[in-house]
Amino acid sequence: MSAELRDSVDKALRDRVDKALHDFLQRATAPLAQISPDLEPFGAVTEAFVLDGGKRLRPAFCVWGHRAAGGADSDEIVRAAASLELLQACALVHDDVIDASDTRRGAPAVHRRFAATHRAQGWRGDPEAFGAAAAILLGDLALIWADTMLAESGMQPAALQRAFATWDAMRIEVMCGQYLDVVEQARGGGSVERALRVARYKSAKYTVERPLHLGAVLAGADDELLTVLSDYGLPLGEAFQLRDDVLGVYGDPAETGKPAGDDLREGKRTVLVAFAIESANDAQQDTMRRLLGDPALDDDGVTILRDVIAATGAVDRVERLIDERLDQAQTALQSPLIAPPAVDALRALADAATRRAH
Amino acid sequence: MSAELRDSVDKALRDRVDKALHDFLQRATAPLAQISPDLEPFGAVTEAFVLDGGKRLRPAFCVWGHRAAGGADSDEIVRAAASLELLQACALVHDDVIDASDTRRGAPAVHRRFAATHRAQGWRGDPEAFGAAAAILLGDLALIWADTMLAESGMQPAALQRAFATWDAMRIEVMCGQYLDVVEQARGGGSVERALRVARYKSAKYTVERPLHLGAVLAGADDELLTVLSDYGLPLGEAFQLRDDVLGVYGDPAETGKPAGDDLREGKRTVLVAFAIESANDAQQDTMRRLLGDPALDDDGVTILRDVIAATGAVDRVERLIDERLDQAQTALQSPLIAPPAVDALRALADAATRRAH
Repeated sequence: MSAELRDSVDKALRDRVDKALHDFLQRATAPLAQISPDLEPFGAVTEAFVLDGGKRLRPAFCVWGHRAAGGADSDEIVRAAASLELLQACALVHDDVIDASDTRRGAPAVHRRFAATHRAQGWRGDPEAFGAAAAILLGDLALIWADTMLAESGMQPAALQRAFATWDAMRIEVMCGQYLDVVEQARGGGSVERALRVARYKSAKYTVERPLHLGAVLAGADDELLTVLSDYGLPLGEAFQLRDDVLGVYGDPAETGKPAGDDLREGKRTVLVAFAIESANDAQQDTMRRLLGDPALDDDGVTILRDVIAATGAVDRVERLIDERLDQAQTALQSPLIAPPAVDALRALADAATRRAH
Repeated sequence: MSAELRDSVDKALRDRVDKALHDFLQRATAPLAQISPDLEPFGAVTEAFVLDGGKRLRPAFCVWGHRAAGGADSDEIVRAAASLELLQACALVHDDVIDASDTRRGAPAVHRRFAATHRAQGWRGDPEAFGAAAAILLGDLALIWADTMLAESGMQPAALQRAFATWDAMRIEVMCGQYLDVVEQARGGGSVERALRVARYKSAKYTVERPLHLGAVLAGADDELLTVLSDYGLPLGEAFQLRDDVLGVYGDPAETGKPAGDDLREGKRTVLVAFAIESANDAQQDTMRRLLGDPALDDDGVTILRDVIAATGAVDRVERLIDERLDQAQTALQSPLIAPPAVDALRALADAATRRAH
């Protein structure tokens, strides 16, 4: 992962989140060894996955949502915020099974790691099926541990109880967003509106708005402040997803952690692709129909598709949309309801999360 | 599902659990339609799955654990207990993806239902991959909803907070048990000790001990009573799993809801099979090595394997173990710490859950 991408979130905060996750997982994985030595890799892979990089954007939004509502900085809120990384681990590990992705954050995907273990042990049955099984269960465990970590964060029980509805809505929305995404891929895309809805539920709410709300509600925020945080978080989250879509097609593999053209080979139905389909002439339609989602697409094919998508004007449209949404988000930060210490941090996070040269 | 099997749990209680699940899912699925009409099947399939049968054993143990600790009967405890069925839905739906099972409770498995939708819609990509993706996400959603339903059961916040550690341990243990099971299948079994450990974590604790504890802790039980409930629950849970293993090989498909010989075709590494491998002579070893886990095993093959396993004496050993464990469980019920209204019900549940002619 590139230095720039990691630097979206202040290093001191990232280190605190990493330490909170490390400490939690030390405690959480210990009882597994008591059950059976066979569980050792199950705990170790979860730990390696969670601690290996990640931008820590969601914890950062949670911590700054808390400050925005007048909450004090504390190890407790950092621990509560860090639990979002375990929820995200579930989402990513299951997503990689669903997409049959080979890599994640530049390393083999979790199901591939377990498939490799199966092969190394010379076990019976299909290594890939074993890998998928282990990854499904590991994702379930991460989803459960996210709860545990939040509950044991040290935040007051009354605050945790208040925050449950937000936590719950966030978890439900991300699973629904993922399902809508899967349906949209199956349907072959083509609707800008539906692609934007996926971006909203899978990313805007889950990555930005809900983490902000979670932190704010833990500090006792009222509905007015939550609305302001939505006015900032939803457009920003959409912009963040749109930036991710562009990077998925045009980004540098050294920085995105995925092979170049992976999103094209997979045929991801993003807003960018929906714009391209909407505006393409017949020849361009034809090229896209032929190449998009071809798992055997080579470097030349990737270049051709990149050029066609850009030629339809889709990239420019996405960039304009990102600018527009980012502008909306920054404007929302002018609200006097946001406690001053949070304003600069939220402004910087918005810029970093949508920056062109990640 | 046969009348006998369903009747393990008193019909009045089953009806109350079903109603609690129905009411919860009505409320829980409503917001999904607001997000997108595409989510309609996602909610509807969860509802159909959860409400379609199931013995309601876990809720029954939870309700009677509550009574055992002196708790009063109430709709609140039934709702809290019913949330276990959503956790179980996650475990089963993910398990069916992992095992690539075609059916569950006599109906198509969830991933198969979504694969059929994919085909009917003429969507692009692999219908089976779509089915697996949808089932993974639906299982995640059920895992989350289990939490929601417990939190919204109406039990007092202090009681819920007290119960969190039990709830959490139960969820973690079932995922670890499932993983150990997958590893054991991959390893090819052969260890009675390891097969018993899988039965303990996947079933004894998850199906009986933890549900009892959950109910008891919600009523404010002390550690002494929890120990008594473990003395009853762990051997009973093991006996229940052993009975299930026998039914998986020798049971009537009309009653088990699975095609005859499915466990043999899948090559399930149960305690029964571990006993058989341990005691088999060379010819029997050879037959088992050849036929166990053969996905193309026909009716004749099923009969041969059944006979060989019985001839090793494995079935008798399992039956003796079931009797022994059931006896331990019934003896534990003599403790004066168990509130009298619960004793008869727990005795009847023990008999029903391990009955030979399910």
